[in-house]
Formats: sequence, C-alpha cells, structure tokens
Amino acid sequence: MEIFEHDLLSGAWSPEEVRDRCADLGLRINLFQPFRDLDSRDPERFAANLERARHKFDLMRRLGVDLMLVCSSVAPDAVAAPQQLAAQLRSMGEVAQEHGARIAYEALAWGTHVDDYRVAARAALDADHPAVGTCLDSFHILSRGIDPAGILEIPGELIFFLQLADAPRLAMDVLPWSRHYRCFPGQGGLDVPGVALNALLAGYEGPLSLEVFNDIFRQAPARQTARDAHRSLLHLQDRMRRRLAARRASGVRASAHELDRVESLLLPIPPAPTPRGLAFVELDDESGGPLAALVDAVGFARAKDAEDATAWVHEDVWIATRPVDADVARVSGLGVRVPDPARAAARAAQLGCELISVEALGQPLQAVDAPDGTRVTFCPAELPAHPPAGVGVPGLLGIDHVALTQPWHEFDGATLFWTAVGGLDSLPSNDVADPYGLVRSQAMTSCGREVAVVLNVQPRRAQEHGAPVRDGTQHIAFQTDDIVAMADHLQRQGVPLLHVGDNYYEDLQALYAFADEDVERWRSRAVLVDEVGAGRYLQLFTQTVGGVFLEFVQRVDGYAGFGARNAPFRLAAQARADVRS
Amino acid sequence: MEIFEHDLLSGAWSPEEVRDRCADLGLRINLFQPFRDLDSRDPERFAANLERARHKFDLMRRLGVDLMLVCSSVAPDAVAAPQQLAAQLRSMGEVAQEHGARIAYEALAWGTHVDDYRVAARAALDADHPAVGTCLDSFHILSRGIDPAGILEIPGELIFFLQLADAPRLAMDVLPWSRHYRCFPGQGGLDVPGVALNALLAGYEGPLSLEVFNDIFRQAPARQTARDAHRSLLHLQDRMRRRLAARRASGVRASAHELDRVESLLLPIPPAPTPRGLAFVELDDESGGPLAALVDAVGFARAKDAEDATAWVHEDVWIATRPVDADVARVSGLGVRVPDPARAAARAAQLGCELISVEALGQPLQAVDAPDGTRVTFCPAELPAHPPAGVGVPGLLGIDHVALTQPWHEFDGATLFWTAVGGLDSLPSNDVADPYGLVRSQAMTSCGREVAVVLNVQPRRAQEHGAPVRDGTQHIAFQTDDIVAMADHLQRQGVPLLHVGDNYYEDLQALYAFADEDVERWRSRAVLVDEVGAGRYLQLFTQTVGGVFLEFVQRVDGYAGFGARNAPFRLAAQARADVRS
Repeated sequence: MEIFEHDLLSGAWSPEEVRDRCADLGLRINLFQPFRDLDSRDPERFAANLERARHKFDLMRRLGVDLMLVCSSVAPDAVAAPQQLAAQLRSMGEVAQEHGARIAYEALAWGTHVDDYRVAARAALDADHPAVGTCLDSFHILSRGIDPAGILEIPGELIFFLQLADAPRLAMDVLPWSRHYRCFPGQGGLDVPGVALNALLAGYEGPLSLEVFNDIFRQAPARQTARDAHRSLLHLQDRMRRRLAARRASGVRASAHELDRVESLLLPIPPAPTPRGLAFVELDDESGGPLAALVDAVGFARAKDAEDATAWVHEDVWIATRPVDADVARVSGLGVRVPDPARAAARAAQLGCELISVEALGQPLQAVDAPDGTRVTFCPAELPAHPPAGVGVPGLLGIDHVALTQPWHEFDGATLFWTAVGGLDSLPSNDVADPYGLVRSQAMTSCGREVAVVLNVQPRRAQEHGAPVRDGTQHIAFQTDDIVAMADHLQRQGVPLLHVGDNYYEDLQALYAFADEDVERWRSRAVLVDEVGAGRYLQLFTQTVGGVFLEFVQRVDGYAGFGARNAPFRLAAQARADVRS
Repeated sequence: MEIFEHDLLSGAWSPEEVRDRCADLGLRINLFQPFRDLDSRDPERFAANLERARHKFDLMRRLGVDLMLVCSSVAPDAVAAPQQLAAQLRSMGEVAQEHGARIAYEALAWGTHVDDYRVAARAALDADHPAVGTCLDSFHILSRGIDPAGILEIPGELIFFLQLADAPRLAMDVLPWSRHYRCFPGQGGLDVPGVALNALLAGYEGPLSLEVFNDIFRQAPARQTARDAHRSLLHLQDRMRRRLAARRASGVRASAHELDRVESLLLPIPPAPTPRGLAFVELDDESGGPLAALVDAVGFARAKDAEDATAWVHEDVWIATRPVDADVARVSGLGVRVPDPARAAARAAQLGCELISVEALGQPLQAVDAPDGTRVTFCPAELPAHPPAGVGVPGLLGIDHVALTQPWHEFDGATLFWTAVGGLDSLPSNDVADPYGLVRSQAMTSCGREVAVVLNVQPRRAQEHGAPVRDGTQHIAFQTDDIVAMADHLQRQGVPLLHVGDNYYEDLQALYAFADEDVERWRSRAVLVDEVGAGRYLQLFTQTVGGVFLEFVQRVDGYAGFGARNAPFRLAAQARADVRS
C-alpha cells in the first residue's frame, strides 16, 4: 500500500502504530507520498525544502517505508534548467540515502516546467544517483495525450514505482479532472493496460499501485471500493495478457523471451466470457401480480404456474415473475448464455464475486449478484428448443436490451462488473434530460450485440419536490420485425401504451420530412422514431407497472443505438403519468 | 417568458393550450428557442433548413410568439464566409417576415465559425433586413473572456433580445460549463451587470431574460428556483444602478441624458445593507440542554433564564438557546446589526422574503428566514451597552464567524440570499476533504469583515456507509486576543476540546520550522495553526454537542481567511469522535 501523507496527518495513530497495524494485516507500505515543490531557483528555499524532506525521511523510517514520491514542482520558483533540476534531485538523493531511503520523481500533468514523464525520467537519469528514480502515473501520461511508447526507452531499474488510474474522457482542465474524476482501470476511457505493459516491458517489476482520487469513491462504502479495486487489478492483468498475445503475434519491439518474462509476472485468470444472448429475465412482482398480468396481456405463453413463480416462454426467451413483498416491481435477475458457464463462474469467483448455486432452465447453474443486486446466472450458450406453448407474440424476435437502475454510488462498480465479469463493452455514455434532473445512462453490449444492458442512474431529487419518486424504473426491450403490427397486436390485447403527445409528431415531420401518412401511422400507435445516418429505430413503450415497463423496438438498416434522442420525451410522459396516478 | 422548444415537445399541451394558459397567467411569450444549424455551405441543405424553419414559424404563430432565437451553427457545413452568412440570414428574415415573425441571431461560444457576439451582430447588420436582429447572451460573451465594451457599438434596434446567465469560474470547456453550471446573475463570478448595462446603454429596451441550464436547478423544487430568479433580477438591477452611478461619476462614454434614460428603465429597490456586526446568535438546544451547558462552561454570563429560552451576554454579544424537540442542536437565528433596519427589511420584502415581526434585544424588530431556515433579524447598528453581568469570558473580542450547513440544493439560493438580502460578498469557494467526501464551503463577509458567514454543503453519504451522519454540524467562532490564555481558561472550565492528534504537530514543525516550545504550547492546548504570507491564524474547537461546536480564533498580522488548511484535520478528528460516541 501507499501512505498518502494527508491521511497519516489526519489520523490519530502514530507512525509506529500504523506500521505495526500494516504488519499485522500482512501489508507492506511501498510508498510515502507526496513530497511537493522540492526544487527551487532560490538556493535558500531549496535548502529549506531539503530540511523539510529530512523531517519526512525520519517519519518514513518510523513508518517502515523507504520510497518517497517527489512530484514535479507547481511553484512559480520551480527550476526550469534541466541541469539544475538534475543537480537538485541528486542533492535530494544524497539526503534520502543518508536516511536509507530513495525518491521516485514524477511529472504532474500540471507541473510548472516538468509535465511530461519523459522529462521527469531524463532528470532522474541525469541526477545519476542510486537513490533517485522515477515514478510513472498512467493518468498524468494519458490525460495529456502523451505517447506511452517512450516508456520503453526508460531503463527498467530507473522506474521505482508505477501508479495506475483510469478516467472518463472529460472536457476539463487536467487538475480538477485528476482530483475529482479518476477511477479504477477499466472504469474509464484511458489505455491503462498500454502504460502498465510498457512499464513491465521496460523492466519494471514492482507493485501495480492504484492511485485514484474520486469524489464518489470518497462517499462510497470502503468495502465496495476495495472490491472494485481488487477486481480492477485482476481485470487489468487479463487485459495486459491479451495485449501481450497481440504483441506476440505482431512481433513488435519485443523478443519472445521478454514477452515470456512479462507474462510470468501477471496473475492468470480465465478469459472473459463472450455472451451469446439472454436466456431469461426474472422479475420481482408486486402483490396482485400486475407485472404477471402485463406479460400475460402481451401474449407470452405461460410455461409454469406455481405459487412461488410464474414463467412464460417465447421461442428460446423465458420470462419469470416472483411475488415479493417489495413496494416496487423490478428486474431481479438475468440469465446470460455463455459458451462455457463453468469457466465464466470460475472467473467471476476469482474477481471477487460470491458464487450462488441456482436451479434455472431445469438445470443446476451458477450465478453471481451484480452490484445493484441483480442476479446474473451463467447459462449454456445452446439451450434445448422449447416446444411452442401456444400462439405466442406475433413478430417478436427476442430481447433487445434490459435497462437497470443503479444506486448513484455504484455506477463505476457496475460498469466494471459488466465488463470484467459479464464480458460486455461500454458504449459512449449519455446524460438524458428527465423533468427532475439528468439521468446518467451507460449502454454496455457484447461484441456482436447479442447482449445489451443499459445502466441508468436517476438524478437526486430534492425532498421538498412534490412529484413522486421513480427511482426504480427499469425496463425490458423486445425486438420485433414490425413495430406497427406489434402496436396493433398490443392494442387488441388491451395493453396500455405510453403516449408522448402530438407536439412530438409535428416536430418529427419538421425534422425528417416524413410523409404525412407515416407520421400518422406512428402517432396513432404511440411509436417513437429516431434516425442516425441510414439507420432507423422505431420504439414503443407500455405504461409503467410497479417499477417496470416493457419496450418494443424495430431496428432498420443497422441502427445501433438505443433511441437516446427519444428518451427525454419518454421520461417526460412517464413523469406526467406518475403525477396522474 | 421564453419557450424552450424541447419543453413544448415534451409536454402534453398543444401550442394553443400553452398560449391560452400563459394569457390566463398574465404572461407574454417573448421568444421561441432555439433554431439550430440554419446556415449551410450546401444549398440543398440550406433550403431544407428553411423548410424546417417554416414549420417552426407556423408553430410560433399558434403559440402567439413572434421572435425566434437562431443560434450560430455548430455543424461542420456551417458557412464561413461573412457575406454568404449575411445572405442566408437575409433569406431567413424573408421567411420570418412572411410569417409575421423575426429572428434574433446569437453567437454560441462553441459555434463552428461564429463564436463571438461581435461577429454575430455584424452578420445580422449585414443581412440588412428588418426581421433580422441579434441576441446577446452574457454567458456566451463572458465565458470566452470577450470584452463586453463592443456591445456599445451595436445599434440598439438591432439587439432583439438579451439573455442573462451567470456561472462560477470553472476550468472546463465552455459547452459542458454552459449546459450544466449556469446560474442566476449574482450567484456566479461573471460580470453580468456589465453586459446588461451595456445593452441598455446601446439602446436595448426589451426584457431581461434569464437563460440558465443547471443540473441542480433541474432537481430543485420549482418554487425555490422561481424565488431565486425573481430575487436575482431585482438584485441585478440594483447592481446596474450602482454601476450607473459610478459611470455618472467618471463620465465615460455616456451623456447624463443617456444615463437618466437607462436608470428610468430599472426597478428601484432600497440599497443593500452594510452589516456592522452580529448582535446575537440563537441556538436550538436538545433535551437536557447540552448546548446551554457548553455556553455556561465557556463562562458567558447568564442574562435571562426562562423556561422557553436562556440568554447569555458578553459585552455586546448575546447568545440564546431555546429547547426544542429536534434530534440535533443547530444555529437557528442570527441578529445582524445594520445602519437602517427598517430599510433592510423593506429591501428584503421586495426581494421576496416574508417579513416576520420578532421581539429581540428587548425591542420589536423585523426578521426574515434564510433558505436554510436560519432566522435573520435586522438589528440596529448601535445597541445600548449592557451592564456587565459577571466575570464573562477573559480575552473574548466578539463573534468572528458563524458556519451554517446548507441543504445541497440551496447552495446557490443561499449565496444569493446573503448577497442580495444580507449585504455580504462571496470569497472564493473551497472544497474541503472530509473522510466521507468533499464539503463545499463558501465564506461570505461584509466589506469590512464585521459579519462573516460560512456556508457548507455536506457530501452525500452512501446509505450503506457505517459511520454516523453529521449533516447538521454548524459552529460559532469567537475571536480572542490570546488563544493560549483562552485554551487554558477553557481547560480550567472543563470544556472538552477537539484534539487532531500528534502527527499534525510534527508536520507543522516540518512545514513552518517553528520553535519546539511553540509547537508544544499549541499541541498541549489543541490549537491549530495556519499561516498565509505574514498573517497567522490560531484556532481551537470544542467537541461537538448535538450538531454544534464552538471555535475560538486568534488572528495575527492581517490573516484574512478561515483556516481552510486545517479544516480537513478538524473534520477527520470530528469523524473519529462521532465513531467513538
């Protein structure tokens, strides 16, 4: 572990007590950080800074840690001349050595003169002192768009430490971005495996350290953060192994021996599953069974009808409801078809998930709980065909996607779960305007779109707000090959649909210059339309029952999204329906 | 009012119903917005865009609004050549005129080619069509640091509309800054009065329209947002009048006649009060009176002891507690000395505050409630001296500041209240690290520091978090001329103090190179130290009682802050005390 000085200073434990507690827990303290603004053009201030450092080396000795992180200076008096900087680092190295310690010099992305890891490494090299090395930090490198290939040029023994952090791509200055939005590798959009792999190829063999500053992580339970940190590190090594395999194939810049050496440093875990589709969706139903009634009305054929559960089937898609005492109906479980369920479960267990034995699809299977509590069951990719149990739903092709509402502090944990455990990839995320705030929305899909899950975080609502809270709204979207026929079928069946209002359709005409009769066909059937390029998306929604509604979508000519353009209209109509009900 | 098209499209009411409802409410619709991406280098697309515009002019006729906002294009095919842009705006003007409408062309700060109000105004002028004018938006001008002086060069009759928004100074791209962080004039850091005043001096006489996109406003109750919008507009006009007076004095660029004309457009309100100090602090106490016991222990002399309230006095500072049934003790009221209490109350009433008649300091006074519920009483600046009621607290100079915890959605409303109603100014805001998240902290002071209020918003806490919630922690800070003597006095009195731990003091020595005996003098008395330049701040805290603690501070050599450096240490120690209790 690293000790961030501020945590020690804020704490009640003496350095010796922290050292002993770490030893009791089997933890080694690898780094003490940060030491700021070391170098100075003012010799008197530099001398004072060395004096300050002596205090900290004494403190480190009491903690039992011998490596200090020295950040590039952000002070206006920072040294600009490379030779002077190297000389000051060398002086610091001498002081460190007197105390049996070493320093790792790091370029902050916002350092006054040193903001590039290549410059920092050069200064550490020129310091030419055994107690002076460099520290690499993936955020400081990638946030500024600096090519990580230069890491391969750094002598491995000069890389004293490696800090890893991911981050979402945000349009803001690096300093607030770094201080508030870092996240664990795999939760953001930076190529962290590339940086880590290059460090290992250069010869670094020390710890992979997570250095993450994140407002939401501060607010979240520590156990959840620890779970995700551990999961992230294992998943990172998995990604590095895949990257190594690609390098092996391309033969760029590394011998087989080198690649073998690096691979031997990585913890092996089973590869991520490649989901082939959803086998089933389980729903918690409210008393009186309103969701069961909705599924019946849609026309799914009942395949099981027991006191504790009702199940329907349509070709190879199963839906099940379970009556519970909850206030709000919700999606409680998903069955994911994967080529090797046992291997997927073994990987999940290694990634810190508790395995749960379940009976599903008439066979014993293994499941895990996602961070939001949704139970995910690993099902075989190929399932025995189920005999048609009735007429079924005309034109229904299967499940298109499932939308799950996430607790606000579990968003990053959920994307990591669905990536590392579920084998999905993140699409670019959206903020969707709800009448009461912004919904943060993240679609995640398998490579061939066989499985798609949309994770939504509802906006926080002021308690004084009059409108009812709909924090639990989730939905299942089914794909159809004819949305108009589906709408007619649902209307015949008496399924209540959600209408967004006529203004939407007038705008549709202005926007896309559709023929009047097309617009009227959609308007009268509550069908919403989106177009991106040549692709078209047609969608309709049932009214919300408990906390769940059903969606039906028709994808035309390769439309790949999820109707983000229409989501605000849907949310506004749902809010109106809530106020009425 | 403006109609933002998306709101209309999301709504269930037809344009005619919206028009009629506005008429019923006595509202006029001044603007329909936005029309995006009008101009195009592709003649076919431009023709399609005009067709799209025809739909919208029809819609506007049904709404009863004749002015459309046209934003500069953000599309890659946007017109770059000024003459072509003017020609296309002229064509649009012709279409508008056919529909009895006009367009106001506005430069978005992130427009492809037009991102400067001067360029947009030039294009509108060159269009040379009576239905084509420009729209000014303070955010788009000030966020890019463009000099608003150029507004004075625009012919007044060309300025069809004026949109006003403030924003905090943030280090991010203008687009997300604009979409998520705009706020009402007076709540941010932009010179909105300067833009508005220049528009009026140029000859604009239309509405002052607030165009604010803000994530928290979306989540907040509409009534609160309306209250702040109204307050902001009145306060803005007050600031514009003060600016006019300054111009009149300097005589720059405007004749007295012009200044008179502009002044006549502004609604007059009484000037903001200039607070001279706090007269009293009222506290809600828990059952058993723990806060009263704390005030007694500090040594304040009891001046009143009734069943419904206890009061203490020290020179001209009064403290009162009132037993309530609340779980958590809190600061419930402040008495603010102002030169003309009746005028301050009249201004508050005009700014939308409800006036409350109270009996305080032995006389009838008027009070208002701040957004967080704290009752603010306007007291005379000069109060009769109170005979010494006992020994009192040695070395106590008066109240330094009071810290109030704000509901998360009232932060901007609270800064506006304390500025517009309370006559305070905002200092730069801080984020302070608490063990469970970041505390957003905003200090506000009167011009001569006679009154200082610190507004804090606690971080949201995950419900699963084990630690207790301390959302209500507030404090009163008293100034002393000798912190060491005060600490000794408090220790003699048995007042329990908050200790941050020895690590803090070791760092203090490393940081400032203080003499050992100084550090030991502070450490043994739980005194914290901050230095900025030549100034020094010494502070100590009592343990928290209910939701309130007391602070004592000594300011040396002009230290002007509030010990932000030490706040995280205090918060960590308080969190530890919470866990223990």
